[in-house]
Amino acid sequence: MAGNSFGNIFKLTTFGESHGEAIGGIIDGCPAGLEIDLNAVQAEMQRRKPGQSAIVTQRKEEDEVKFLSGIFEGKTTGTPIGFVIENTNQKSKDYSHIKDTYRPSHADYTYDKKYGIRDYRGGGRSSARETACRVVAGAIAKQLLGDIKITAYVSAVGELELNKPYQELNFAEIEKNPVRTADASTAQQMESYIREIRKQGDTVGGVISCVIENVPIGLGEPVFDKLHAQFGKAMLSINAVKGFEFGSGFAGTRLKGSEHNDLFNEDGSTQTNYSGGVQGGISNGEDIYFKVAFKPVATIMQKQQTIDNEGNLMEMQGKGRHDPCVVPRAVPIVEAMAALVLADFWLLNKLSKL
Amino acid sequence: MAGNSFGNIFKLTTFGESHGEAIGGIIDGCPAGLEIDLNAVQAEMQRRKPGQSAIVTQRKEEDEVKFLSGIFEGKTTGTPIGFVIENTNQKSKDYSHIKDTYRPSHADYTYDKKYGIRDYRGGGRSSARETACRVVAGAIAKQLLGDIKITAYVSAVGELELNKPYQELNFAEIEKNPVRTADASTAQQMESYIREIRKQGDTVGGVISCVIENVPIGLGEPVFDKLHAQFGKAMLSINAVKGFEFGSGFAGTRLKGSEHNDLFNEDGSTQTNYSGGVQGGISNGEDIYFKVAFKPVATIMQKQQTIDNEGNLMEMQGKGRHDPCVVPRAVPIVEAMAALVLADFWLLNKLSKL
Amino acid sequence: MAGNSFGNIFKLTTFGESHGEAIGGIIDGCPAGLEIDLNAVQAEMQRRKPGQSAIVTQRKEEDEVKFLSGIFEGKTTGTPIGFVIENTNQKSKDYSHIKDTYRPSHADYTYDKKYGIRDYRGGGRSSARETACRVVAGAIAKQLLGDIKITAYVSAVGELELNKPYQELNFAEIEKNPVRTADASTAQQMESYIREIRKQGDTVGGVISCVIENVPIGLGEPVFDKLHAQFGKAMLSINAVKGFEFGSGFAGTRLKGSEHNDLFNEDGSTQTNYSGGVQGGISNGEDIYFKVAFKPVATIMQKQQTIDNEGNLMEMQGKGRHDPCVVPRAVPIVEAMAALVLADFWLLNKLSKL
Amino acid sequence: MAGNSFGNIFKLTTFGESHGEAIGGIIDGCPAGLEIDLNAVQAEMQRRKPGQSAIVTQRKEEDEVKFLSGIFEGKTTGTPIGFVIENTNQKSKDYSHIKDTYRPSHADYTYDKKYGIRDYRGGGRSSARETACRVVAGAIAKQLLGDIKITAYVSAVGELELNKPYQELNFAEIEKNPVRTADASTAQQMESYIREIRKQGDTVGGVISCVIENVPIGLGEPVFDKLHAQFGKAMLSINAVKGFEFGSGFAGTRLKGSEHNDLFNEDGSTQTNYSGGVQGGISNGEDIYFKVAFKPVATIMQKQQTIDNEGNLMEMQGKGRHDPCVVPRAVPIVEAMAALVLADFWLLNKLSKL
Repeated sequence: MAGNSFGNIFKLTTFGESHGEAIGGIIDGCPAGLEIDLNAVQAEMQRRKPGQSAIVTQRKEEDEVKFLSGIFEGKTTGTPIGFVIENTNQKSKDYSHIKDTYRPSHADYTYDKKYGIRDYRGGGRSSARETACRVVAGAIAKQLLGDIKITAYVSAVGELELNKPYQELNFAEIEKNPVRTADASTAQQMESYIREIRKQGDTVGGVISCVIENVPIGLGEPVFDKLHAQFGKAMLSINAVKGFEFGSGFAGTRLKGSEHNDLFNEDGSTQTNYSGGVQGGISNGEDIYFKVAFKPVATIMQKQQTIDNEGNLMEMQGKGRHDPCVVPRAVPIVEAMAALVLADFWLLNKLSKL
Repeated sequence: MAGNSFGNIFKLTTFGESHGEAIGGIIDGCPAGLEIDLNAVQAEMQRRKPGQSAIVTQRKEEDEVKFLSGIFEGKTTGTPIGFVIENTNQKSKDYSHIKDTYRPSHADYTYDKKYGIRDYRGGGRSSARETACRVVAGAIAKQLLGDIKITAYVSAVGELELNKPYQELNFAEIEKNPVRTADASTAQQMESYIREIRKQGDTVGGVISCVIENVPIGLGEPVFDKLHAQFGKAMLSINAVKGFEFGSGFAGTRLKGSEHNDLFNEDGSTQTNYSGGVQGGISNGEDIYFKVAFKPVATIMQKQQTIDNEGNLMEMQGKGRHDPCVVPRAVPIVEAMAALVLADFWLLNKLSKL
Repeated sequence: MAGNSFGNIFKLTTFGESHGEAIGGIIDGCPAGLEIDLNAVQAEMQRRKPGQSAIVTQRKEEDEVKFLSGIFEGKTTGTPIGFVIENTNQKSKDYSHIKDTYRPSHADYTYDKKYGIRDYRGGGRSSARETACRVVAGAIAKQLLGDIKITAYVSAVGELELNKPYQELNFAEIEKNPVRTADASTAQQMESYIREIRKQGDTVGGVISCVIENVPIGLGEPVFDKLHAQFGKAMLSINAVKGFEFGSGFAGTRLKGSEHNDLFNEDGSTQTNYSGGVQGGISNGEDIYFKVAFKPVATIMQKQQTIDNEGNLMEMQGKGRHDPCVVPRAVPIVEAMAALVLADFWLLNKLSKL
Repeated sequence: MAGNSFGNIFKLTTFGESHGEAIGGIIDGCPAGLEIDLNAVQAEMQRRKPGQSAIVTQRKEEDEVKFLSGIFEGKTTGTPIGFVIENTNQKSKDYSHIKDTYRPSHADYTYDKKYGIRDYRGGGRSSARETACRVVAGAIAKQLLGDIKITAYVSAVGELELNKPYQELNFAEIEKNPVRTADASTAQQMESYIREIRKQGDTVGGVISCVIENVPIGLGEPVFDKLHAQFGKAMLSINAVKGFEFGSGFAGTRLKGSEHNDLFNEDGSTQTNYSGGVQGGISNGEDIYFKVAFKPVATIMQKQQTIDNEGNLMEMQGKGRHDPCVVPRAVPIVEAMAALVLADFWLLNKLSKL
């Protein structure tokens, strides 16, 4: 029950450390007969890739995914889809400065204590590089989901928030700005702010919002595998995530039932959508929307006190090329994880009734 | 893969509708040789039970748990622990008024659409009555966990918030007031407010905070089964929950890395704890703390417009005895789910290294 | 991952010791909308029940199954089906003679060593009483499977073998004789032999054959969850089973490929069926047939040397009412386990292709 | 729940078709800190490899395993172990003759019907090439198991049987003869027979026996995951397997209880071992032994009638280099699967009691 698999029916298992030879995964349970657009998969990879704009890490990683099985003559065959992504850049770096040192608010200390051994090369398994595999699988899941439309965007960078309801935003803007927010002028402010933060050698947190449209009714498996519970787990499993709320979320706790209840229209749709498209753990056909909180990246280009693995105090400073703010590159990861959850429940739901 | 099991090694599977003959469950994977204090189990049940104070539902349910297997001469035997809780009250009610009607913001509509059939008697499987089984299993898990101390309390009722850090609160107060908050004067305000809400025939949401002390280092199974990801799923699977944040949470997104990083002390502990006791998905030995957002109860004693299952508009009004605010009774449920997560990872962690 | 669950989608979890208050289980994943014939369930229970004929144990157990959830107005609702069977007879016995003693070829010794504690009352969890829960779930699975016809029968008792191919047998005979074999005259010989064995205070082994007709093509999930591999596991998990073979089985190892290959007819059916209805782990639409080997019951009414839990040699003799030969009562258990395997794969197969 | 994973804690997931770019897998749950002898892994691969002797297929496959993650500085790190084996030979063949044709007693027909699409290049996923991944994982599992000694050998080829109890055999002979049987003179007879069969363009079945020594008490997870049930599933999931028996097996069904019961010695060991080292589904410390039946290879070098995918009758004849008898190369596969079962239960058993 080691935790490197996600999903029940549409199931992703991943492997790989940031500086090993390759990372990769196996998607088991994708139905046969799905035409796979490999360019669309690679396009998702480009959205997550380092070096894509001036406000993200300038590391060079090709992130080219190679499928090894499960797809034949352009279609899935029902057999497991194996894939690898080579770590082309892994040998050039020197990690001796962190070999015996625990970086603050990283996973160095906890991995070392849990496993008694640590692949100290750049975060090893705990590196967000692992999420590239999620994006591959999510891209396949998206193709399975057809008309279901998943759109994530940055809704906050530090204290800069995009405060409009998603219905008033222009999703077409998202991929036009390097921050991936859904409003052109906010994008400029956020971009400037991230540049400023980077100059300081500092980092900053942010929030990603996600909206899912054209959702079929019936997705989710109560009582423990409620749709939103699985979304929550999926999002919280992404590196640096500290919170998840859907529908009215934390703000909804301040409302009264008479304000919060979503009254029905005659066709079963609802007049409001505080429920966020999920009732009793099952999708009701309304839009699903949720927010994901990301902490500031732990690696900063400033001196910090820390300890080595013998408990000696020492100073360290981040080296290399790191993201000053993780949310722009995390947008495709949020979408990928949402797609994995939906694909799994979409398949399971076919078995709900005779 | 229907969703009525939780956990990998310490695994709970539950069954039961609110108005069937009984609810119950099976705990599989509890190690043999654990002395079980049955009174402690029943005491947890009392904390969740209806009718325990003036501000919760006045329904009468005995909620007496009967263990049927897996415990012999006071100790667990390593075999599955089966238990049932009879629904003593289930026959007295008349549910004809909701048989063909979908209550707003309830699960009536989604269950009916997903399964094509609905046990309309009081929520059926979607009723929070199901959580009684979680409390039973959580009480066993707590006994397995020994010194690990899990404390949940109400930190907000509507707009009334208990805004102190948990270190400044008095946990001894929690069980002394019917709201289960950790401050006597706030408790009085919250209680008055809930009484007022009930008079209006309305309901209100709230927040539960949870603190876990004496946590061993190493719990959690990256990359998908990160400790906090599983906590998130556990909490979001509780009825009426809309959000989850741990450590710095959503507020942490507004901080810079230089502010948010938790610097080490020489002994490996940290000077601050924005991480909330989890780094890289693995416990680091610091206190774990998180917040859970609950929406207002959907059943209100006011007239609301709704539809029947043929799409006809109609008016309905809640009947019977319902909670005006769910958080006081949800405190033991939050603790139970936390205990289930911890017990599972505590066992799994024994297998992390040779 | 304690081993008290069987199946992936149509999943049975059981609990209960032979002499606790009750045994029972939860079936999770049965689709909604299935009409349940409760009499048919109870009829299967009668086939497994002690005391049904002169050649089985004369213990009195009512074995009345009580469903607690998941069935409403005669139909499954898609929620978990919880059930219990009370152990009406459990208090009358005296088990002090085996409390500290390990019965030869029983599970007393291994349970004690594995768990460090043992419910010594009549076998506890290791008793075949547990299989009553399998029969309940199997009876539900059979109803789900509709036209698929599962027929098990006794094909050997000790050295008495029923050596005809199943096509030449009369399945209508099976329930007419207490041995449950498919031939009237063989039945008489077997019955006489079992009576003789019982008089000797001894027991004898036997073989059950199972034939499954009207099987849809496509059941089974390679490469590990091949249809016959899951049948094998299912059968080997039944108490006292020592072997499993399907199709040509062990005899097939002596054939050449030119003799063993099943040549196709134009419609895809095969001229012979050495494959036993499974090719590459997937059903091919031909009849499935397999054999299950049962060892002689370990409890004999003769004196045997054994040891107590301190390693002292001692003599013991079986007490009470035990089966001289287990196969007549195991026939419905074999069918039940076959039904569980088929139900699971029948559901999973709906997800194999778009 | 697609079936490409095996195990609960020590879990192998595999991917790959015989003629895709590569096959491979992920081992999740191997504890950290295990020193890995890569040569020992590759040595197991050589035992399974085509072309190793005159009586097996003369295909050329390098079968070089490349580990991509989870091993660092010679030790496991607790993270998933990803590996690939390139299909170096895959492009050279012409499969047009079987593209639209279903080979008798192969999986062509069932895969096509189940998935609606078939990778017709040499068996695709249903090819025994997939078992190379099992051997890799099994070799790691063997290293985890330390002193537990797993020995498989060929005990029958067609009608030639090695009829001595394993205690009288010389295991040192096994790797000295190409048949992998445990007796030099029988080896010669078997080898001659296989050569003769090959000359006929035919194939023949066989039996592999497996003995496991130095087994700790307590392995196995009743009631469904009994040790021998999981062995059975593991073995039956290997290509061409038709039967499994352990301990006294089918022959034991003919014995009486008074003959079959294994009486205890004072130290808890048993005087006989009809139980095959397993009682109540849990290892008792005695040797485990079982037999696995393999049917004759379906591809023969003789003309056979078959059909194409439109139901037209046609003749076909096997091409290429195939095994006349599969058992010599299946010996390491049987051992590998046994090791996977044992590793999983060995880890799980650490959680059985406090």
